[in-house]
Amino acid sequence: MKIGIVGGTGDIGEGMAMRLAPLFNVIVGSREKEKAQASCECSMETLKKKGMQCTLTGVSNQTAIDDADVIILAIPFRHLSATLATLNGFENKIVVSPINPMEKRDFFVLVPPPEGSAALLVQQMLPKSARVCSAFNAIAANKWRALDEELAYSVPVCGDDAGAKQQVMEIVNHVSRLQAFDAGPLAVSAMVEALTPLLLNIARYNGMRDVGIQFK
Amino acid sequence: MKIGIVGGTGDIGEGMAMRLAPLFNVIVGSREKEKAQASCECSMETLKKKGMQCTLTGVSNQTAIDDADVIILAIPFRHLSATLATLNGFENKIVVSPINPMEKRDFFVLVPPPEGSAALLVQQMLPKSARVCSAFNAIAANKWRALDEELAYSVPVCGDDAGAKQQVMEIVNHVSRLQAFDAGPLAVSAMVEALTPLLLNIARYNGMRDVGIQFK
Repeated sequence: MKIGIVGGTGDIGEGMAMRLAPLFNVIVGSREKEKAQASCECSMETLKKKGMQCTLTGVSNQTAIDDADVIILAIPFRHLSATLATLNGFENKIVVSPINPMEKRDFFVLVPPPEGSAALLVQQMLPKSARVCSAFNAIAANKWRALDEELAYSVPVCGDDAGAKQQVMEIVNHVSRLQAFDAGPLAVSAMVEALTPLLLNIARYNGMRDVGIQFK
Repeated sequence: MKIGIVGGTGDIGEGMAMRLAPLFNVIVGSREKEKAQASCECSMETLKKKGMQCTLTGVSNQTAIDDADVIILAIPFRHLSATLATLNGFENKIVVSPINPMEKRDFFVLVPPPEGSAALLVQQMLPKSARVCSAFNAIAANKWRALDEELAYSVPVCGDDAGAKQQVMEIVNHVSRLQAFDAGPLAVSAMVEALTPLLLNIARYNGMRDVGIQFK
């Protein structure tokens, strides 16, 4: 299975690529292919120092989509619409949204689009055959990058395509100690996307860093 | 400190009363005083069998408000407005909302009122001097009642009055192994109220029961 990361050189995407590279065939996309290649060189060097020899391929976002079976949209909500408008080829692919539509005011707050959630907006913008799931919403960028730390978190996964959701949950369950939970259809993905601003506020008001979540 | 539970004979309220009774002076309110008294007799008997001698006083909802310093609104969202409309005397009191505005369709979904959340609706309906906090939103009724089980959960607490929030967090931290977290102002309480339908869906779709949450 090939996983393509759109926005794979960003805050979340780069750490995600390093965590996934030892487990899957990972293609890192960026607006500029050269930037993706440089990021991959750097990530491979980091992994090598930790004794993990693996290949990360840097390409354009469009090539990441074209060459992958599963596409992770590792882009901030504010760039989502503009980015998707420049890309195509999502037909029949599994598309994972870890995107949280939130704003930082005096505190973090969920500001969902009229579609109801970032994942629902993704579904609306992509062809009908794209199999959209939300996952990885509440894993902090720092935690993705901290390769020596275990990720002992619960990951709620939403989606309307049972097969796609099953595959995404299997990907989740392969990463460190992440544990996937079926959180229902995309219609309730806003409740999952709300976790991230909630956790950011909890970090802020309780003097914590990179707070995650476990279902018990 | 006296804690009054409005709706103290309901699903959540009764278990809450039994958990709080050994720790605080608890007054159990109900629409009918007789029902509250019967519930208290029964709860005290249950506690006695577990070696805990404590007093629970059954009164009307109005008396529970009048006699308490901290009032917990243990009522379902669908009865919230009608119940508050019949009650008064909330001036200067700490009022805790564990209420989640949700509906069960094919799955559970958050349906916040126009005010933004149940806690914000409470604040709007009560006198300005009432010190409203949200807390205890995601602790299942069965867990409140299972007195032999530890409650090892995280409890996000929202509120605009720092002193009231501090007192509510202290109450939370006294109960079993609950751990209170400041989740910010009431303005973000909808993100806390969204946890319960999220957890109910996770229980349902993953064959679990009474799922709770921990921040890590």
